[in-house]
Amino acid sequence: MRATVLGMTRRSDLHRHPERGSHDRETIDAILDEALTCTFGFVRDGRPVVLPTIHARVDDVIYIHGAVAAGNLRELRDGIDVCLTVTLVDGIVAARSLFNHSMNFRSAVVFGTPRLVTDPDERDVSLRAIAEHVLPGRWDEARQPSRAEDRQTMILAISIDDASAKMRSGPPVDDDEDMGLDVWAGVIPLSVVAGEPQPDPALAPGIDLPGSIRDYQPGR
Amino acid sequence: MRATVLGMTRRSDLHRHPERGSHDRETIDAILDEALTCTFGFVRDGRPVVLPTIHARVDDVIYIHGAVAAGNLRELRDGIDVCLTVTLVDGIVAARSLFNHSMNFRSAVVFGTPRLVTDPDERDVSLRAIAEHVLPGRWDEARQPSRAEDRQTMILAISIDDASAKMRSGPPVDDDEDMGLDVWAGVIPLSVVAGEPQPDPALAPGIDLPGSIRDYQPGR
Repeated sequence: MRATVLGMTRRSDLHRHPERGSHDRETIDAILDEALTCTFGFVRDGRPVVLPTIHARVDDVIYIHGAVAAGNLRELRDGIDVCLTVTLVDGIVAARSLFNHSMNFRSAVVFGTPRLVTDPDERDVSLRAIAEHVLPGRWDEARQPSRAEDRQTMILAISIDDASAKMRSGPPVDDDEDMGLDVWAGVIPLSVVAGEPQPDPALAPGIDLPGSIRDYQPGR
Repeated sequence: MRATVLGMTRRSDLHRHPERGSHDRETIDAILDEALTCTFGFVRDGRPVVLPTIHARVDDVIYIHGAVAAGNLRELRDGIDVCLTVTLVDGIVAARSLFNHSMNFRSAVVFGTPRLVTDPDERDVSLRAIAEHVLPGRWDEARQPSRAEDRQTMILAISIDDASAKMRSGPPVDDDEDMGLDVWAGVIPLSVVAGEPQPDPALAPGIDLPGSIRDYQPGR
């Protein structure tokens, strides 16, 4: 495989289809919105910790949430730095040489300092955004959070000030001297698909599939 | 959404289908092997940096690679700590209450200190493992790395000593008092699928699809 860390490539390389870095907000936002989950990293006792979670973007802010009772998220509310990263893998790039193998991908990295969300209106907005990020239309179908449930939920906001995107797309880029090799080259596209919804075995009879489930499409 | 950070849940919760933590190596290895990409985090100037890359496991070691010329990976070779995390998203869990919404997932987190791989034999093994992790069978189909290409490639090894897995599976778990609600509940399964291989527009005529491409199945 080409010696390229996704999202961290040699910018000085001159390829026909270069991996591109971008600080364009529209590009970054589209990647953040399409990714179902993210990983966020923080420093604990001088060492890195990277965990996956669900996120949602509202304008210039990314929200993540966790249980108040969970110690790990509690560390983040006191103004420590985080790095939030999302990755979408679009395809496997098979070149004529192993060295030029690669992946088509889109990634975004956001550096920031989380702010604890306490304002009731912002809490409503952020919880709804997280639910709707995962399942558009679901908020109005299911039972709304109670005050007790709200109290159990910690919400953190990270401003999208210091963010970047990286991506690669297109066919393999081989060295000129390899173009005559008798080796197949091309791309295997990858995508996430939703299977048939599986009703809860305890679901009462006569409850139809709601819109959020029926219309669900990954990465829409 | 349930206030649960994936892979970082309240272990004291007693659910019918609890999210489970595990230090079982077989479980951890299966998650590492299925995940096409990972994110790795490290500390730069006291702050967390989390980047995506490709990994491969060989027995008790995870290998990642990068360009020698890339400054970012160079930071890692001098014995600083990293946290390498993979996440597989298996489904969206729609509960009767918004609070109990969740995701079915499998994640693994590995803490370690990378070691620079310099031994020629280990370098061969690790490069082959990375190529075969992404596209089984590809190593013997494509042009092998030259010595110049090898010199451009930095390989790091992370021992799987301090690792854990977390996962959730199964139907939603609602509160007893919500079971009578007229709300559909269940799971939307998610999976990664490969599309039709797209030949390089510059591919010479008469080159058949090789086994690695023809037989490719994500997460096999």
